[in-house]
Amino acid sequence: MSVKKVPFFELEARMKRFRDKMDKSNPEWRIAVIFSKINMYYFTGTMQDGMLLIPRDKEATLWVRRSYERALDESAFSNIKPMESFRDAAASVGKLPDTVYMETEVVPLALYQRFRKHFPFDFVKSADMQIAAVRAVKSSYEISLMEQSGKIHQQALEMRVPQMLKEGMSEAELAGELFSALIEEGHHGVSRFRMFDTEMLLGQIGFGESSIYPSYFNGPGGNYGMSPAVPLLGSRERKLKKGDLVFVDVGCGVEGYHTDKTMIYMFGKPLSQEAIDAHQRCIEIQNEMAAMLKPGEIPSQIYRTVMNKLDAGFLRNFMGYGNRSVKFLGHGIGLQIDEFPVIAEGFDEPLEEGMAIALEPKKGIENIGMVGVENTFLVTPDGGRCITGANPGLICVY
Amino acid sequence: MSVKKVPFFELEARMKRFRDKMDKSNPEWRIAVIFSKINMYYFTGTMQDGMLLIPRDKEATLWVRRSYERALDESAFSNIKPMESFRDAAASVGKLPDTVYMETEVVPLALYQRFRKHFPFDFVKSADMQIAAVRAVKSSYEISLMEQSGKIHQQALEMRVPQMLKEGMSEAELAGELFSALIEEGHHGVSRFRMFDTEMLLGQIGFGESSIYPSYFNGPGGNYGMSPAVPLLGSRERKLKKGDLVFVDVGCGVEGYHTDKTMIYMFGKPLSQEAIDAHQRCIEIQNEMAAMLKPGEIPSQIYRTVMNKLDAGFLRNFMGYGNRSVKFLGHGIGLQIDEFPVIAEGFDEPLEEGMAIALEPKKGIENIGMVGVENTFLVTPDGGRCITGANPGLICVY
Repeated sequence: MSVKKVPFFELEARMKRFRDKMDKSNPEWRIAVIFSKINMYYFTGTMQDGMLLIPRDKEATLWVRRSYERALDESAFSNIKPMESFRDAAASVGKLPDTVYMETEVVPLALYQRFRKHFPFDFVKSADMQIAAVRAVKSSYEISLMEQSGKIHQQALEMRVPQMLKEGMSEAELAGELFSALIEEGHHGVSRFRMFDTEMLLGQIGFGESSIYPSYFNGPGGNYGMSPAVPLLGSRERKLKKGDLVFVDVGCGVEGYHTDKTMIYMFGKPLSQEAIDAHQRCIEIQNEMAAMLKPGEIPSQIYRTVMNKLDAGFLRNFMGYGNRSVKFLGHGIGLQIDEFPVIAEGFDEPLEEGMAIALEPKKGIENIGMVGVENTFLVTPDGGRCITGANPGLICVY
Repeated sequence: MSVKKVPFFELEARMKRFRDKMDKSNPEWRIAVIFSKINMYYFTGTMQDGMLLIPRDKEATLWVRRSYERALDESAFSNIKPMESFRDAAASVGKLPDTVYMETEVVPLALYQRFRKHFPFDFVKSADMQIAAVRAVKSSYEISLMEQSGKIHQQALEMRVPQMLKEGMSEAELAGELFSALIEEGHHGVSRFRMFDTEMLLGQIGFGESSIYPSYFNGPGGNYGMSPAVPLLGSRERKLKKGDLVFVDVGCGVEGYHTDKTMIYMFGKPLSQEAIDAHQRCIEIQNEMAAMLKPGEIPSQIYRTVMNKLDAGFLRNFMGYGNRSVKFLGHGIGLQIDEFPVIAEGFDEPLEEGMAIALEPKKGIENIGMVGVENTFLVTPDGGRCITGANPGLICVY
C-alpha cells in the first residue's frame, strides 16, 4: 500500500513552532511528554502506543511500544525508537528535568503515576494550552486537507441529504445513510473531540423537537439519541413526518483534518414565519462574524460585539434551548472538532492568518427545533473564507 | 419518545454488589467517585457530564452538570441533583474522607486536580479493579441484551457478509456496508473499549495480508487502516481479489452491551492447506477453552493449559503475526469490549456464572493473513454457552 505520509518539512515546522512556544511561555521549560495519539500524530505523523519526549535542547524521540514497525512505515519523523516498557526507555533516557510538561487534560492519573514511577520528577505542569495554540494556526498543507474535507461536506449536506429525506424514515436511518455517503465522498470516517469522554461518532441529527432535546454534549443542538446507553446517535423511534424541521450537524474529515457544518431542512411544508425569521437572523450573524475573522481581531471582542447587539427576545433559546445555552459562538477546528481559539469570553489573543474556525449561531424554537447554521472558515486579511459551501440552509424538501 | 430505562432493581443490585466489593477489598474504604460515562451508566442508567459520589454508608448521589433534565428523563436512579460547578456541589457535600477511590485509569490528571481543589482529600486510590470485578458478572437483564446482540452479530457475519463480498471492493467499502447492515439489524452503533485512547469504531476488517499488518491495537489481528491519521478503519486502496482471505473482527451491541465475533471467509478460491489446517486448529482450541468456561475454573490456568499443549511450530505467529503476539486468548465483555476477566496470566480469581467472555484463538499465516475465530460465551455450569452463532468460519464465497 502507498502511505500518505505527513511531509518531513511539515513535522519540522510544527516542532519548531512548539519549541518557540515553550521559550515564550516559560524560559525554564525543559521537556514535554506527549501520550495522546492526536498530538503524537501532529508532531510525528503516526499514532502509536508509546510516547514522544520533546526536550528543549535535544532532538525529540518517539518511543513506540506498539507498533514500532508501522511507525517506521508511515512516519517521516527522524528519531523513532522501540520500547518494551517504561523501564527500558527510562534506562536509555536517564534523569528527566525537575519539571515535566504533560497533556494533563488527556493523560489518566494511573498512566501519569506509572510514568512517574519510572521517570521520577518533582513537578508536573500542563502543556495543553501551548500545544493547542500551536495547532490552532494551520499550515498550507493542513489547509489543503481541510479544503478537501469542506468540499465533501458541502456535497453531502447540500446535495445528497435532500435526496435522502423520506417520510417515515428514522433519525438513525438518516444517520446511517449520511455516514455511508460521507465515506463514499472521501470522509475519513470519524469525528474527533478534545473534551473528556465525548463520543460523537458522526454528529447530531434531529427531526423537529428532537433537535432541542438536551444532551451532555457541550453544543447548541440536541437529539433524543438511540437510547440512554448511546445518547448521541440518532433515534430509531423518531420518524420523519411532513412539516418537520431536519437538523443535521455533523463532522467530516480528510487525513485527520476536520470541517464542521450544520444544515437545516424543511420537510414537506414550510416552517412557521417565526422559525424562518430566526434562521435568517442566524445567517446574518454568521456573516457578520465571518467578516471579523481577520488577523488581529480578538475572539472575545467578536463574541461581545455580536452578543451585545442581540435583544433579550432573540437571546431567549439562542445557542441552546431553555437553560442550556452554550457560552460560545464558534470554535477552532483541525485534527479535532473542538480546538482553539473559541469565539467566547476569555479568548483574548488576536486571531492569526491560517486559523480555522467554525461559526455556529443557532436558536431553538419551541415545538419546532433548532434553526441556524454552521460553516467552517479560514482567517484571512479579507475576513473569514468559507470552505464548506455557501448555501444558507433551510432547504425545502418536498 | 419512550425511554428504555435500566430498571431500578438492576441499579440497586449493582450498587449493592459494589458496596460489598468495597467492604471486601478494604474495610476502611469510605467513598468512591465516578466520572466516566460508562461506569456512571452502569450504576445510574444515564450518561451525563457530572459525577457519581458513592459514600460507603450513605445514599449515593449523581451530580449532573449537563443535562440534569435528561438524567431525570432517562434514569431510574433515585438521587439525582443538579450542579453548576464543583464549587456548588462541594458546598453541599461537605468534607470528603481522607482517602478517595477514583477511576484512575480514566480520569485525566487535570480533572483530578480540579476535583481535588474543591473537594480536598489526602490520598487517592484506584477503584478500577473493583468496578471491573463487579461489572464482570452479568445479570439476567444484561445477558438478555447480550443475547440480542449475539443474534444480530451472527446474522450480519454469517449471513450478510458473504453476500457483500465483491471482487474489486475496498476494505473501507466493506466496512461501510457492514456498519449499515449491523445498524439495520439493531446494532447500537458503537464499539467501546476501556484501553487508553483506543478508537476502534467498528473493528478490524482486512483483506489478505492486510489482516496481519501491525497496528497499535492490543489484539491479534491487524489492518492497513485508511491512513496514518485513521489507522484502524479499512483501507480504500486494498481491493478484494480472488484468492483473498477476508478477516472480519467487529463489535456489535444492544443498549450498551456488546458481543465480539470474528469470521474468516475465502473469496474466489480455497486457501492453502496450511491456512485451512491452522484455522481448524484454532476452532478446536476455541472449543476446548469453551468447555472450561465453568464457575470455579481459573482464567490463568485455562490460558496455561491451552498454551502448554501447543508446539513451537504452531505458536509461531499464534495470537499475532511476527513479534506482536498478544498475551491472552480471550477477554471479558459487556458495556466495553475489553472487560475482565482476561484469559491470561495473572487472572487467578475463579470464573463465576454469568461472566461473559470472548474467546479468540487466531494465527497469522505468511502472505495470506489471519485465520482463526472469535465468539462470545457465557460461563455456565455446563461450560461456555456461545451466544454469537456456531458457524466455524472459513466460509467459501465464490
